[in-house]
Amino acid sequence: MKTLKEIIECVPNFSTSDLKVVEQILNELKTTKKAFLLDYTFDNYYNRLVVSFVGDKRSALEAMLKMAFRALELIDMRTHKGQHPRIGAVDVVPFIPIKNVTMEDCIRLARKFGKTLAQERGVPVYLYGEAATKPERRDLDWIREGEYERLEEMMAKPERKPDFGPAKPHPTAGATITGARKVMAGFNVNLGTSDIKIAKKIAKALHSKKGGLANVKAMAAYIPEKNITQIGMSISDFEATPLYRVFELLKIEAGRYNVPVIGSEFCGMAPLKTIIDVASYYLKIDNLTADKVLEVAIQNAIEKERKI
Amino acid sequence: MKTLKEIIECVPNFSTSDLKVVEQILNELKTTKKAFLLDYTFDNYYNRLVVSFVGDKRSALEAMLKMAFRALELIDMRTHKGQHPRIGAVDVVPFIPIKNVTMEDCIRLARKFGKTLAQERGVPVYLYGEAATKPERRDLDWIREGEYERLEEMMAKPERKPDFGPAKPHPTAGATITGARKVMAGFNVNLGTSDIKIAKKIAKALHSKKGGLANVKAMAAYIPEKNITQIGMSISDFEATPLYRVFELLKIEAGRYNVPVIGSEFCGMAPLKTIIDVASYYLKIDNLTADKVLEVAIQNAIEKERKI
Repeated sequence: MKTLKEIIECVPNFSTSDLKVVEQILNELKTTKKAFLLDYTFDNYYNRLVVSFVGDKRSALEAMLKMAFRALELIDMRTHKGQHPRIGAVDVVPFIPIKNVTMEDCIRLARKFGKTLAQERGVPVYLYGEAATKPERRDLDWIREGEYERLEEMMAKPERKPDFGPAKPHPTAGATITGARKVMAGFNVNLGTSDIKIAKKIAKALHSKKGGLANVKAMAAYIPEKNITQIGMSISDFEATPLYRVFELLKIEAGRYNVPVIGSEFCGMAPLKTIIDVASYYLKIDNLTADKVLEVAIQNAIEKERKI
Repeated sequence: MKTLKEIIECVPNFSTSDLKVVEQILNELKTTKKAFLLDYTFDNYYNRLVVSFVGDKRSALEAMLKMAFRALELIDMRTHKGQHPRIGAVDVVPFIPIKNVTMEDCIRLARKFGKTLAQERGVPVYLYGEAATKPERRDLDWIREGEYERLEEMMAKPERKPDFGPAKPHPTAGATITGARKVMAGFNVNLGTSDIKIAKKIAKALHSKKGGLANVKAMAAYIPEKNITQIGMSISDFEATPLYRVFELLKIEAGRYNVPVIGSEFCGMAPLKTIIDVASYYLKIDNLTADKVLEVAIQNAIEKERKI
């Protein structure tokens, strides 16, 4: 049975939904020792491939470079169309500390990854999130402003000089954003209304930049198959802003319009802490931590024998 | 890093709270390879040691036999006093399937353990829970009726012939109960009242044998340090009777007396499934399973590489 002493999660986003390209990129991961695929999704609407995998410091960097080099070979941004904001073939690559790894370790990995991509392939690279070199660069949206189509113009501005590589787009690959961040939680809530105007008001009420909750991004969408609306949210720091708080505030804001919450789902995987916080809130538990969860306690006991 | 391919949890209960005896029993566990201590508690009031550990089939049985043999050497039931019902020095030993192990595996282990204890030490052994040989023997309380003090008299009854060993108590060790069962959840809820009569009514309303919820045992207690009452519960099958249902029914029954729930806690470890069910209920999630929990997904991906 395989184990990893240190665990880093990587969630690279590539600008492709071409099955043959997807397969070749995933194959680079598959052939890297001690790198393990968690999940991947791609669709034509976004024309984007999102991969999630884990490795240790060495294997995460190795797999990431192999996948990026392959993507640079196969993806041509000059012909890319898609609904998701993007500036490059290897659009964004976050390194996320999971276990026995610090945020600083992940920042170092992002820097190494970015530097290598610039030096060996001439791709301009921006550092974002915890790896950002200027406050505004923490924000992915700021870096991606103008997208691939206006990238050359934007990159010419002195305040947008990349952290590594040339100050102009790579001819076929655009630019790459890499960095380090905490695990995020994605959470979608379905509303018992088809009225997108109401859904947008509720999303706005929750969104941090619009006066809502810290660490929350929220957007409204209409779901035609069900004739309902949905609030799609991401919580960038669910330890500071726990999920129950987001959910209860959403119910309050929806209550203004007599709109019921009819269901919800995690978008991507559910971090254990979000579930523990929800259970603790609704059951009024004060002291529930991950190490009190039976399965976690067993894993911990096996990995590190408790001395009597 | 150590791993176990199969995981069995064992929760032996020994009739002692003598620190020197406790240490010697735990030492037998410590010196067993591939057996890992999770937790142990003992106190003078109950005069009882409860150990929780995990192992594979081989190590769980080996550790369990070593601990039991040591306990038989050191504990004399003739001088034992304590508030917890018990019939023997090695009072009860459940084997619990956790991972890559079936209930049948655990039943076999319980039978092996019981047979060995009877053959090599002359201790009469009853099988209970899923290992029971008659319906009434599934119930620990039925087997323990009369306790150690009336054991000889009870064992003389034909319907109480032990499954292994002689039909009379071991001179110093009484009798032992072993078997297999699912993981249980222990859960205590604090009530905003000091009135034990009300607490008892609420406990009765929840208790399965008194018309409450299936798989739930509930008892009321007064907590002098806080001048409140508490409902202590165990849920023997929390997949069939999820924790949120127990909690919501408790709130409804407490509401009759205008008694608020002021807090709660898991008694022992919290099985992941109980937390997932609570989060799913309150957030109205339909499809949340353990393998959607990030930490579990990572562990699974590492243990068993997903093929692309």
